[in-house]
Amino acid sequence: MYRTHDCGALRLTDLNSTVTLSGWVQISRDLGGLTFVDLRDRYGITQLVFNMDTDAALCEHARKLGREFVIQVTGTVQERSNKNPNRPTGDIEIEVATLKVLNSSKTPPFTIETDTDGGDDLRLKYRYLDIRREPLQRNLRFRSKVTIETRKYLDQQEFVEIETPCLIKSTPEGARDFVVPSRMNPGEFYALPQSPQTFKQILMVAGMDRYFQIVKCFRDEDLRADRQPEFSQIDCEMAFVTREDILNTFEGLTKHLYKELNGITLPDFPRMSYDDAMRLYGSDKPDLRFDMAFEELNDLGQGRGFGIFDGAQLIAGICAKGVADQWSNKELNDLTDWVKRPQIGAQGLVYVRFNTDGTIKSTVGKFFDDEALRGWGERFGAGPGDVLLVLSGETDKVRKQLGELRLEVGRRLGLMTPGVVKPLWVLDFPLLEWDDDTNRFYAMHHPFTAPKPEEIDKMNSNDREVLKGLHADAYDLVINGVEIGGGSIRIHDRALQSKNFSLLGFTPEEAEAQFGFLLGAFEYGAPPHGGIAFGLDRLCAVMNGQNNIRDYIAFPKNNMGRDMMIDAPSRIDQGQLDELGLDVRVRE
Amino acid sequence: MYRTHDCGALRLTDLNSTVTLSGWVQISRDLGGLTFVDLRDRYGITQLVFNMDTDAALCEHARKLGREFVIQVTGTVQERSNKNPNRPTGDIEIEVATLKVLNSSKTPPFTIETDTDGGDDLRLKYRYLDIRREPLQRNLRFRSKVTIETRKYLDQQEFVEIETPCLIKSTPEGARDFVVPSRMNPGEFYALPQSPQTFKQILMVAGMDRYFQIVKCFRDEDLRADRQPEFSQIDCEMAFVTREDILNTFEGLTKHLYKELNGITLPDFPRMSYDDAMRLYGSDKPDLRFDMAFEELNDLGQGRGFGIFDGAQLIAGICAKGVADQWSNKELNDLTDWVKRPQIGAQGLVYVRFNTDGTIKSTVGKFFDDEALRGWGERFGAGPGDVLLVLSGETDKVRKQLGELRLEVGRRLGLMTPGVVKPLWVLDFPLLEWDDDTNRFYAMHHPFTAPKPEEIDKMNSNDREVLKGLHADAYDLVINGVEIGGGSIRIHDRALQSKNFSLLGFTPEEAEAQFGFLLGAFEYGAPPHGGIAFGLDRLCAVMNGQNNIRDYIAFPKNNMGRDMMIDAPSRIDQGQLDELGLDVRVRE
Repeated sequence: MYRTHDCGALRLTDLNSTVTLSGWVQISRDLGGLTFVDLRDRYGITQLVFNMDTDAALCEHARKLGREFVIQVTGTVQERSNKNPNRPTGDIEIEVATLKVLNSSKTPPFTIETDTDGGDDLRLKYRYLDIRREPLQRNLRFRSKVTIETRKYLDQQEFVEIETPCLIKSTPEGARDFVVPSRMNPGEFYALPQSPQTFKQILMVAGMDRYFQIVKCFRDEDLRADRQPEFSQIDCEMAFVTREDILNTFEGLTKHLYKELNGITLPDFPRMSYDDAMRLYGSDKPDLRFDMAFEELNDLGQGRGFGIFDGAQLIAGICAKGVADQWSNKELNDLTDWVKRPQIGAQGLVYVRFNTDGTIKSTVGKFFDDEALRGWGERFGAGPGDVLLVLSGETDKVRKQLGELRLEVGRRLGLMTPGVVKPLWVLDFPLLEWDDDTNRFYAMHHPFTAPKPEEIDKMNSNDREVLKGLHADAYDLVINGVEIGGGSIRIHDRALQSKNFSLLGFTPEEAEAQFGFLLGAFEYGAPPHGGIAFGLDRLCAVMNGQNNIRDYIAFPKNNMGRDMMIDAPSRIDQGQLDELGLDVRVRE
Repeated sequence: MYRTHDCGALRLTDLNSTVTLSGWVQISRDLGGLTFVDLRDRYGITQLVFNMDTDAALCEHARKLGREFVIQVTGTVQERSNKNPNRPTGDIEIEVATLKVLNSSKTPPFTIETDTDGGDDLRLKYRYLDIRREPLQRNLRFRSKVTIETRKYLDQQEFVEIETPCLIKSTPEGARDFVVPSRMNPGEFYALPQSPQTFKQILMVAGMDRYFQIVKCFRDEDLRADRQPEFSQIDCEMAFVTREDILNTFEGLTKHLYKELNGITLPDFPRMSYDDAMRLYGSDKPDLRFDMAFEELNDLGQGRGFGIFDGAQLIAGICAKGVADQWSNKELNDLTDWVKRPQIGAQGLVYVRFNTDGTIKSTVGKFFDDEALRGWGERFGAGPGDVLLVLSGETDKVRKQLGELRLEVGRRLGLMTPGVVKPLWVLDFPLLEWDDDTNRFYAMHHPFTAPKPEEIDKMNSNDREVLKGLHADAYDLVINGVEIGGGSIRIHDRALQSKNFSLLGFTPEEAEAQFGFLLGAFEYGAPPHGGIAFGLDRLCAVMNGQNNIRDYIAFPKNNMGRDMMIDAPSRIDQGQLDELGLDVRVRE
């Protein structure tokens, strides 16, 4: 037996008990007559004391313990003269009688403390040391609790967790698949699932009624800071449901998680159509921790001789409240430069400053007198001290640029208050997205998403603009401007699914080759169904007000898709390639 | 809203309620004036009644409903005149007022009933219809409950569920890996994990203390009926533990599952060394639902002029109780043929029949008189009516053959009583297995398994026989002759791990290239640790007294590793191969 208690367990009520503890040496302090060692494990830190007078040899031994040595001690719990109120075990210490070194440690390449001095690559390489740090321990425990509470909630709602296969079939639609050569079927490949989409639909056809799974998914995409080649989803599907049933169930799940994990009771989530979200916030995932909705100014801005406005498809702006005194022209010029950066791509920024002294200053004062500008202000409900920021140009671009500007202003003004949680359902996404490069439509959600029932007839149109205007019964859950999950009501009718495939440019043969099993299943009594998937990694980060999903993944890959700790991927034996019947091309 | 109730919900207390149900048409019976439809969903079956007198058109519509049509009905709950006590909803029926067909169905290729007429391949191809059958629905719900109860138990024991990566590094040791070519690192491959072994050890080094995960694992092996290329493990690891801690924790888990899922309270599990299991039952996973332990007869069987016995390394037998009258010579000859089949490989079978009339009949009566044979009988505690079955030859082979014979006799005598649960811990497995073909040792469990502490010194021996005799601190949980799980105390010392690698024929360079990260981790304060993994698929099957793990997997592969439903694996686009820099060899 290595321990009677963990390092977070002992209290004054344990005084005079003989205990055995094991753990890591956090720090050792030699004060001459006494040596103090902080012993650490996952559960806490307990102070050990070695007394030179009582046992000089033992004390000498303790003095030689290095950081991160693994030791086992037996001793007596005694009250501390110098209590530490910041530590649950801070009232006691262990007067050590025996000490055993279970393992030694080299000096770690970075400090095992809440704020470490290790760089990203070093921390990934020595992930086992990084995870010893309290923030990562806390994150991984948090994630574990999220999955436990998710399962508890869904189990109570009669969901059955069903594992779907990892070795499936590659389909050219969607993101790029990771593939797995099959030795038993030479020349053929499995694919790793980008999501269990078709399998969960099949489970609805199979009568399982309510399915969920916390499941690894895979996408071979070029990585960004917040993307990983493998990631986890809370994946769900329900039969005999309308959108309302799904939104209520998963709003319930989200409220349950915030209540159990963060102690926050969330009110009912507001809902907004995709069209409104784009019109008001220039984003399909608006951050509602602050309002600053767009107002459109075409009627007020055009016909005054300002060419840029006159030629614009859309003139729209936001109102930054109470910043007129705070923002000098320098700040406004800086914002102008910010929107002109290639990442944003605006041509320029028009501003109107309603000074607190009642005067008005604007970059377009030449074309608009104070009365005209006051008209703008009225539209925004702007008063003295407010500043309007206005962009113009092509509608979609203006909205996107203004959406970015809104977020930047929110950041600069500190409006994204930590601890504030603003969830939002975004509804009725477009069904199809046109891509000029490949000259075809793509599914905005995925090819199995149902159109809004009242728009099904329009799917027979040959007019591209009509097709662009189709809406899907698709929805996203957004929290604080981050997409947490999304889903849709699915098509459950073979003819409608075939029609959708044809709009996406599949020939009937291609549709059959790739999704014949699903089309076939629809002919044997497929029920109406729909579902949703939450990104688990992101959900955990957002629930903690953080952005970096890597901090919630035990062993993440770097931006080159490489596991720095185990050094994967790597070359494989020629024998393995021979068995698979594969050749790696020589690179020129 | 598609339903107010599911098809298993309504009772007499709901009389006269107006309800809406949705589900599948199980069967429709036209009795002239009345048409009855059994409406099925996951939760049960409810009888619908359509009355020709009340609404002839509706009744006509109902008559046309085919099997597996998906319908929605609204109607009134009424008491049945002809109650069905075998069905929870059997006291009521719904007098239907409105009927809507949500989807039609072609005639299924096999019947959707508990006993189906579908062959294996057909059922795999139409898995969505197979899963509609009650046994598969029950199996998948059972599996889901097993995982929920497992998590509940382990969470209460402070285990943290941590996801380890699926895209890892290929190692030549162990079974064959599935590999995944990396597009971003051309010429390099990930491997899919055969188990999260090294990662869970790393998590112990990282201080997570108690880890678990229900996780997909992958092995590219030639498949047998009870093997799948992807399978699921309940995977666990604990730090600062001895074997005793691990056995107690997972014996507790097993008891918890049997109690919660099967309503069975299991007594404490017996334990047996590997050496005893082999000596007494010829198997490292003895089925203890019946005893029939081996007795050895070398002292009684040799030196009597029976050449086969005299030349044998081991003479051993089992005693079949009370079968002397039941088994004619024909049955005994049949058993002799059975052990001589190539799958078993015995040269012959010696039997001694202690007839109920006191006479003794034996195939070796020429060499052993009645007194000698009575001596054999005494060793087995055999009396009148019992039959001894004796094999001889090389020790290991005799034990294996006799173990198979014991099971066969158990089967023939119906001794593997359904519902009886006999768990067993098998302890102290050999550390190393010698392989004559490759002229090297392999790890019996895996290369990270710790030797018994008292035998560590022997690892420095150059004597192959000494090394063969080494024992590992490894253990298996066996239930009713099926290995449910296994694990070990791990090595946590770099020098000992290096020594073990060298016994397994790794050069230091190979050990470093493949497992350098683990050896490195051991230098930074690795705690003592150990763990275990249970096979989830098999556990579910065994808990239901079944053998076929496929019946507990939603979408299993066939014996060629093929998913018959989606038709995977399959060829991939040339573009995908080009991106990966791979060529598929042309087969001659």
